[in-house]
Amino acid sequence: MTQMLDAKKGTITDEMKVVAKNEGVSAEYIKKMVAKGRIVIPKNLNHHFPGIKGIGEGLSIKVNVNIGTSIDWVHIEEELEKLKIAVKYGADTVMDLSTGGDLSAIRKKIIENSPIPVGTVPIYQAGILRARKPEQAVVDMTEDDMFNAIEEHGRDGVDFITVHLGVTKETIEKLKNRRRITGMVSRGGAFLLAWILHNDEENPLYRNFDYLLEIAREYDMTLSLGDGMRPGGIADSTDIPQINELLILGKLVKKARDGGIQCMVEGPGHITMNEVGANVILEKSVTDGAPFYVLGPLVTDIFPGYDHIVGAIGGALAAMAGADFLCYVTPAEHLALPTIEDVKEGLIASKIAAHAVDISRGRGIEMDIGMDRARGNLDWNGQFRLCFDPEKARIYRERRGPSVEEVCTMCGQFCALKMANNYLRGGER
Amino acid sequence: MTQMLDAKKGTITDEMKVVAKNEGVSAEYIKKMVAKGRIVIPKNLNHHFPGIKGIGEGLSIKVNVNIGTSIDWVHIEEELEKLKIAVKYGADTVMDLSTGGDLSAIRKKIIENSPIPVGTVPIYQAGILRARKPEQAVVDMTEDDMFNAIEEHGRDGVDFITVHLGVTKETIEKLKNRRRITGMVSRGGAFLLAWILHNDEENPLYRNFDYLLEIAREYDMTLSLGDGMRPGGIADSTDIPQINELLILGKLVKKARDGGIQCMVEGPGHITMNEVGANVILEKSVTDGAPFYVLGPLVTDIFPGYDHIVGAIGGALAAMAGADFLCYVTPAEHLALPTIEDVKEGLIASKIAAHAVDISRGRGIEMDIGMDRARGNLDWNGQFRLCFDPEKARIYRERRGPSVEEVCTMCGQFCALKMANNYLRGGER
Repeated sequence: MTQMLDAKKGTITDEMKVVAKNEGVSAEYIKKMVAKGRIVIPKNLNHHFPGIKGIGEGLSIKVNVNIGTSIDWVHIEEELEKLKIAVKYGADTVMDLSTGGDLSAIRKKIIENSPIPVGTVPIYQAGILRARKPEQAVVDMTEDDMFNAIEEHGRDGVDFITVHLGVTKETIEKLKNRRRITGMVSRGGAFLLAWILHNDEENPLYRNFDYLLEIAREYDMTLSLGDGMRPGGIADSTDIPQINELLILGKLVKKARDGGIQCMVEGPGHITMNEVGANVILEKSVTDGAPFYVLGPLVTDIFPGYDHIVGAIGGALAAMAGADFLCYVTPAEHLALPTIEDVKEGLIASKIAAHAVDISRGRGIEMDIGMDRARGNLDWNGQFRLCFDPEKARIYRERRGPSVEEVCTMCGQFCALKMANNYLRGGER
Repeated sequence: MTQMLDAKKGTITDEMKVVAKNEGVSAEYIKKMVAKGRIVIPKNLNHHFPGIKGIGEGLSIKVNVNIGTSIDWVHIEEELEKLKIAVKYGADTVMDLSTGGDLSAIRKKIIENSPIPVGTVPIYQAGILRARKPEQAVVDMTEDDMFNAIEEHGRDGVDFITVHLGVTKETIEKLKNRRRITGMVSRGGAFLLAWILHNDEENPLYRNFDYLLEIAREYDMTLSLGDGMRPGGIADSTDIPQINELLILGKLVKKARDGGIQCMVEGPGHITMNEVGANVILEKSVTDGAPFYVLGPLVTDIFPGYDHIVGAIGGALAAMAGADFLCYVTPAEHLALPTIEDVKEGLIASKIAAHAVDISRGRGIEMDIGMDRARGNLDWNGQFRLCFDPEKARIYRERRGPSVEEVCTMCGQFCALKMANNYLRGGER
């Protein structure tokens, strides 16, 4: 059974109850939306973890953290530290995007240690195992390699997988005609594009979608329909290959839902602020409300080293417009594999975006009001208790400690709150 | 003469020409908008500097950096370093908010060294000079103290001053009735609130607005109408005292314009994302399009240590809705006086917001497209050349240098761009 098949039959699962409780909505609502495919609960039947999450319409905004090795940096312990930091600072899900070292072993370790849903991109494994063989390359992977990887991930307990179904002969043709400045920046998408052009055959995942659904059903793996055609720069945003791919994904969402498989859709990428709303509306319209998982979006391209801030602006805008799930961006994006500290900085930037949107809908605003009360009372212990990252806040305050305990070094004794409240509350001088 | 009086007479000043050239609009347009008060060019007749800026409708989004000592931290050399960093990373204006040390000497040093417009809050000086006298306090400042400070700042060459004209007996009454959680968080506003309640007299700046206009006219100082009643927390956003103050400011803008004095209006503060647009529309409507100078806004309160990111989200949203001028927020906000590094981080966060909005209107987008092109070609030197902060970007890239020169350690040899472009451009393997 899958969450969706249960929901369609009218069954409220334990997972639906957990989501309902955490989100402050009725289990009935969750069931109804899971049945429609407007909410997904990524949970593999083989993965048992406490942090069950619902993603979609009417729920709080979720944040994903990408971790994983690369060919140039294989340190499993560091990736497990990243997982810990991600969980500590409120990541809702984590994706293992490893491409270096023993991929199966790393994945198993991450799943074993993760209290939250784990996602992967199985095509990496299929291509990379071939590329490591003598005189072979990514394009030598077979259809069996691809489906075996998916099957293995399912067996291992992966909760959601990105599959680039919209990278087809048709969209590649449009990409060629378009002569994009950034070409293709999706790694999984590039594996498939290269494979399709090299072998002159259609995308096997697309052609054998029914088989893919069968595997997904076996483990209740949620599909995250990847956007291989996402723009890799502002110059290419919202263009024909991107939109064409989305239209294809829309049809596949319907088919997956008919088969009882949970589905999300991934979105851009690099787009200017004025296009963010349109991208969200388009996705929701074309997919009949499938949860929208946005990668950023990044609303300017000239701030490498600060792309977590760029992504926080884009993510906040997208979530306001209806996106459900934000993939974090670290300050190392476009430059290097992130460190543990980068993961923390990137995650918190995304959490800010998610929380800002949530409270604008009244969700979780009591935390902010509590902080306001602590500030109004110059109650510093209260402020630190309510800080999202009390350790960092303490470092800032203590670095330049005030001479008067109740204020900070910004205003010192001329603290506005202190002066004004003294008079407003009937004191003097 | 003032820029506005010149504009009203039909004269295009040299400053208007500079603004027109830098913004890529006609000098005629600048003149027309300065005459209407929808664009201001803050430039004191006594301050000569190269970085003339126009702020307002149809122009690029501007960013202000606050620097200055506090009673607990008086290091003039550090403040001058902050000024340098601010100019290096593209601040459009700088405000000296010093409240510690020799206020006049610090201000003169900053003006002397600043190639961009300088703003101040003269009421700080009036109150603090009294508070330093034996057995006196801020509330002992006289009307003469207040106007003398303004006059002195004008003589010294200050280009724009914040004056809290909306902190009146009427708005204070509304503030008392409202029983806000955060009371008042504006330092200048608190000085005046305390003074008004202590002396039971009306705000002298408000009561003698004509005299204030006279001084402003003498030096062509732009007035920035401060929002003493701005919300200090989400809990108090868009409330009656805030709106009431804005209505008062709207009337004063009209009077200032009639007198040929350039005027901006300052805005919140702490407001949730869903209220940002409404705040901008309200300001533009009530003031007939006066340039809107927003302080943040901060769209959540629980992220001390990261408020530069919170402010970047709020600032981007506000500017999209029509705000013209963003006051930066540093990561030290609410915790301590910022360091030089904090100033840089805060400024760049605001620059991201400003640039993201600008390019969504087509302004400056060639930089982003250039970056896209460099990325598409895996041209790293080109990427660094176009980075807003190349030094930081290089640190990230080099910290984890790739084994293959043309890629980065995120994907290594499995770089999507490399693989896809190879095939898209007709190569193989």
